Amino acid sequence: MTKPPAPFRYKLTIAYDGTAYCGWQIQPNGLTIQELIETKLKILVKEANVVGAGRTDAGVHARGQAAHFESAIALDLFKMLASLNGLLPKDIRVLQIERVPENFHARFSAINKEYHYHLQLGRVQDPFSRLYRWHIPDKIDIELMRECASLFLGTHDFSAFANESDRGAAGRNPIRTIKRIGIFLEADAARLEFEADSFLYKMVRNLTGILVEVARGKRTIADVEDVLLSRDRKRAGQAAPPHGLFLMRVDYPATLPD
Amino acid sequence: MTKPPAPFRYKLTIAYDGTAYCGWQIQPNGLTIQELIETKLKILVKEANVVGAGRTDAGVHARGQAAHFESAIALDLFKMLASLNGLLPKDIRVLQIERVPENFHARFSAINKEYHYHLQLGRVQDPFSRLYRWHIPDKIDIELMRECASLFLGTHDFSAFANESDRGAAGRNPIRTIKRIGIFLEADAARLEFEADSFLYKMVRNLTGILVEVARGKRTIADVEDVLLSRDRKRAGQAAPPHGLFLMRVDYPATLPD
Repeated sequence: MTKPPAPFRYKLTIAYDGTAYCGWQIQPNGLTIQELIETKLKILVKEANVVGAGRTDAGVHARGQAAHFESAIALDLFKMLASLNGLLPKDIRVLQIERVPENFHARFSAINKEYHYHLQLGRVQDPFSRLYRWHIPDKIDIELMRECASLFLGTHDFSAFANESDRGAAGRNPIRTIKRIGIFLEADAARLEFEADSFLYKMVRNLTGILVEVARGKRTIADVEDVLLSRDRKRAGQAAPPHGLFLMRVDYPATLPD
Repeated sequence: MTKPPAPFRYKLTIAYDGTAYCGWQIQPNGLTIQELIETKLKILVKEANVVGAGRTDAGVHARGQAAHFESAIALDLFKMLASLNGLLPKDIRVLQIERVPENFHARFSAINKEYHYHLQLGRVQDPFSRLYRWHIPDKIDIELMRECASLFLGTHDFSAFANESDRGAAGRNPIRTIKRIGIFLEADAARLEFEADSFLYKMVRNLTGILVEVARGKRTIADVEDVLLSRDRKRAGQAAPPHGLFLMRVDYPATLPD
């Protein structure tokens, strides 16, 4: 008896407008992005189990989500991209399909992620960004926000900024390393860029929420430092709403370890 | 008997995402932007007849539509802006309310208009611009498009690029003056900017349609010149779809003529 041929493994890079979906991950009540991609892939390659780099919540967007699937079929990648996008709704686009080594895993091989959070400033919200930016009509102090953000840089126990699902997960390590937080002011908007090895559940939205409180003068930087050290989620205030958040990029090592 | 007090006249500057509407102008079948603004204004000032600078078609967007209305009430403009936006759906925003002279007319006082048309280039459409840019997956020649656009500059009879509604209108002058066409290439997009004294019905979309045909190599510049001179709408090909078009600005003279 010969062994079945080793399946091929493929990586997808995906952009989606999360407005209409119940997030990335398949769930019993409501349509998800993972489910749609899996359903359409199955039409083309019969069997496909799509594994994402990480879930994004309902309403959260992506410009560079990553996922992998296996298939016994050697695909024509150029044709496959067109066929898959032809079946998917226009608010989900597969940007790239690549063949990857068998030991590539969209979640476990990831070494770095980047998220952007978009704020809309000014008194009246721009109707074109209503689904993509959190509107803050109050005056905000960007310098104060930048100063506060520097507290989060480096390696910390981020328990105070992680929601239930992670704090409850037995033994999940709440320590993360934030490599970069960039805060950019545009004409009538601001963009917060977060880069880390990985993030806890709702961590970017919780950090953004408290940074906006500081920028609005509702909380001091000393208080935020206390919250971080307390590791108490109840003290960190409200998470920023999902619709301002974009998963921009998932990075993998150039050579996968054996 | 004393005359009733002269009513106050107000100008609105309005931005809207046209995706969900049957265009600007009130019509029997389907919700329009003019209708919604009028309905909400009436809640605040009882009587209001909203006159727009011009209609935009179903699916066309605006960042700077202008309109006026009269009211017997002297409005607190700061409060009024908040109240009106509070009543309107988030895809329609009043950006500004100003008091204007009694002889200001949103349509007849306008001296200049600017429209932008947005193209999405590249093989895969960006899901975030699917409602705001026309996707052209083919290679396009921007230099050829620029060269062709220069044909339209200045004063011409634009009958070949005006749809029914205007050509049919008894005696409506088909001569227009285009002051500027700017064509800008971005990373994965292009923007066509049109400025004129006024435009004929569907003129920007018809001009964009033929410019894209030239840029895709489907039509020569000499042919476009023939079409313009022919004044024959049937020769100009298909209009660009509505969702890439934005009414950016309507200009009025600093001092209105008596």
